[in-house]
Amino acid sequence: MAVGETVFPQMPVIKGLRLGTASAGIKKPGRRDLVVIDVPEGASVAGTFTRNAFCAAPVQVAKRHLAMRCEQGLAPRYFVINTGNANAGTGAAGMRDATASCDELARLAGVEGEAVLPFSTGVIGEPMPMERLLGALPQALEALREDGWEAAAEGILTTDTRPKGATRTLTIDGETVNIAGISKGSGMIQPNMATMLGFVATDAAISQQRLEAMLREGVSRSFNCITVDSDTSTNDACMLVATGQGATLESDEALEAFRTALDEVLVELAQAIIRDGEGATKFVTLHVEEAASRQEALDVAFTVAHSPLVKTALYASDANWGRILAAVGRAPVADFDVDRVVIDLGDVRLVEQGGRADGYTEAAGSAVMAGEEIPIRIRLGRGDAEATVWTSDLSHDYVSINADYRS
Amino acid sequence: MAVGETVFPQMPVIKGLRLGTASAGIKKPGRRDLVVIDVPEGASVAGTFTRNAFCAAPVQVAKRHLAMRCEQGLAPRYFVINTGNANAGTGAAGMRDATASCDELARLAGVEGEAVLPFSTGVIGEPMPMERLLGALPQALEALREDGWEAAAEGILTTDTRPKGATRTLTIDGETVNIAGISKGSGMIQPNMATMLGFVATDAAISQQRLEAMLREGVSRSFNCITVDSDTSTNDACMLVATGQGATLESDEALEAFRTALDEVLVELAQAIIRDGEGATKFVTLHVEEAASRQEALDVAFTVAHSPLVKTALYASDANWGRILAAVGRAPVADFDVDRVVIDLGDVRLVEQGGRADGYTEAAGSAVMAGEEIPIRIRLGRGDAEATVWTSDLSHDYVSINADYRS
Repeated sequence: MAVGETVFPQMPVIKGLRLGTASAGIKKPGRRDLVVIDVPEGASVAGTFTRNAFCAAPVQVAKRHLAMRCEQGLAPRYFVINTGNANAGTGAAGMRDATASCDELARLAGVEGEAVLPFSTGVIGEPMPMERLLGALPQALEALREDGWEAAAEGILTTDTRPKGATRTLTIDGETVNIAGISKGSGMIQPNMATMLGFVATDAAISQQRLEAMLREGVSRSFNCITVDSDTSTNDACMLVATGQGATLESDEALEAFRTALDEVLVELAQAIIRDGEGATKFVTLHVEEAASRQEALDVAFTVAHSPLVKTALYASDANWGRILAAVGRAPVADFDVDRVVIDLGDVRLVEQGGRADGYTEAAGSAVMAGEEIPIRIRLGRGDAEATVWTSDLSHDYVSINADYRS
Repeated sequence: MAVGETVFPQMPVIKGLRLGTASAGIKKPGRRDLVVIDVPEGASVAGTFTRNAFCAAPVQVAKRHLAMRCEQGLAPRYFVINTGNANAGTGAAGMRDATASCDELARLAGVEGEAVLPFSTGVIGEPMPMERLLGALPQALEALREDGWEAAAEGILTTDTRPKGATRTLTIDGETVNIAGISKGSGMIQPNMATMLGFVATDAAISQQRLEAMLREGVSRSFNCITVDSDTSTNDACMLVATGQGATLESDEALEAFRTALDEVLVELAQAIIRDGEGATKFVTLHVEEAASRQEALDVAFTVAHSPLVKTALYASDANWGRILAAVGRAPVADFDVDRVVIDLGDVRLVEQGGRADGYTEAAGSAVMAGEEIPIRIRLGRGDAEATVWTSDLSHDYVSINADYRS
């Protein structure tokens, strides 16, 4: 199941960056499950990673290698990504395996081991089939090409039903700037500092510090504002590469124009994860306004987004405003005056003054709920902060996918 | 669906307390949906109520009437409980209706309006069919009897599949003390200061302050330690009555013996709600030990208990320890050293030192998961605080029940 149709966009070349895929047979034979990304010398790289305390071995190694390279004033040179096995909960053996992947790719490519960052997604707690993974690395390196985005987007999927890509091309100070990105998600999605996996690149030249700040800010309003099932993965990571082989962005205006386009790419990739969320039949935009703080707006939005009763009502296309109201009412908000709360479903006023809005009819609510895209707007009457969170519904398919597979 | 078999116990008479039921036809004709409980003069009464900011009209009226009576040194004289309609999200009309129920029962029984506490459970946001409710009050009063517990337990159910009762009889200082209680639950269950509805009574004489303290403490380790779906109802309430027509409990030893038995009754009623949780096929006991504080232990336990991925794995009888580990890892615990975490599934060691335990086999894990009662023990290695939380799994039936009905 997935909501709406997503066409994988025509991706621009990001000069200097190449992507290669291979079939290592990590979980099942024949499918693309290994991706190598070649980052050119002189690039800047920023990354955000899961906050799950049980973060997987590759996340620990990627963070360490990124930090080591930054201390040397260098960027990583390669990302190696596998799907089918998360290398999480694998203890000391998992750390050895993650490091060995980096070392072998480094040997083949003629770089230092810490110039390689590893990423894994898939089943937790199984030993990585290292022989197959290492054996497929040469094939992935040979496949490296500047137009390898769509193949790479397919090569990082797990239970996702379709590849996810987003791109923007803009002109800044007379020069063309390209941004391209891919992501994967599906289940165990409430990222905390990153999505499951996201790789975004631009040909612009931007300093590492600026890139880091822009990624952190952008992720806080995109990948960190989505939830399928409130579960945070052990393997989440989002990387942003600026190859530096295109325009140099230094003025505030240029950086601001770039940031706006980057945010759009990040939001589009994050939304694509929700549209393709496990068992999703609805794409729900929860917009909370008039909160005392952004955190309060996020708290209310996520409380509603996580409510199984709201999510099953969405699945049933049931405008069950009582469940939305009950979820808002249990959000962690101090001194909550519920009489000021106003809830709209699309253009239809559902709730005001602590109860059902005057003039509300089931027919009007049901008409909005019948669609695949459901906008819910909640005004708290407490201030002027706001937040937007995107989520999906809770369907029979979600239960089937997660009860029937070891994922 | 429900886990195991629950036989409604033989309930003792709680001297002075009578229960009467009637069919008011509030949601569907013919079923018991109205319960009146007659509390004798001279009793003590304590109550805990939902912390949902959108608390229903009857909760607001019950809290106000209880406070008014306490200020006068009196206890309430009647509880009036209906199922089928929660009278929540009903604004000013809902407040008028809740008060009118009290006034009419007060008129029929010859007491003050504030001597009556109203309780409602059922669908949110629909106007209460007052004519039918008020019309059935005389029938419920006529039906009042000391052995009316089982009929009352049936009369407060919503989507529950069976009535829930618990009782203890003990001898304190040579005198017999009886405790009896009933509860209802099913969905929208993560109580915060109370279950959906619970009514517990004893014939002992205990002061209102002591009763209040014992109920608060007992609820914090029973009804507030269960979760079906993390949703907190607008209507939760738990009432504890001491009719004072039996033994007088004053010594520390006597009160302690009573408290122990009361806690057992509360835990049994809370567990019965989980066993009969919407779509439940598993009864899961999450015991978190070696936490730095009780709150930390509760945070970890509830994070695991709310994880849809853990709950669907439980439904599938899949010993997917990676999902448990990922849920523990995202709990709000500062400076979490995951290498110290030990997780046991029944007698089987699942996780130690950050990964799968040595010697663990799928066969051993699957054998425990095949049962209906699943004990999970999580040791954090951070201190000596602990907490126990009970939950159910997430099944197709949960989705069906909540997607197919307007509840």
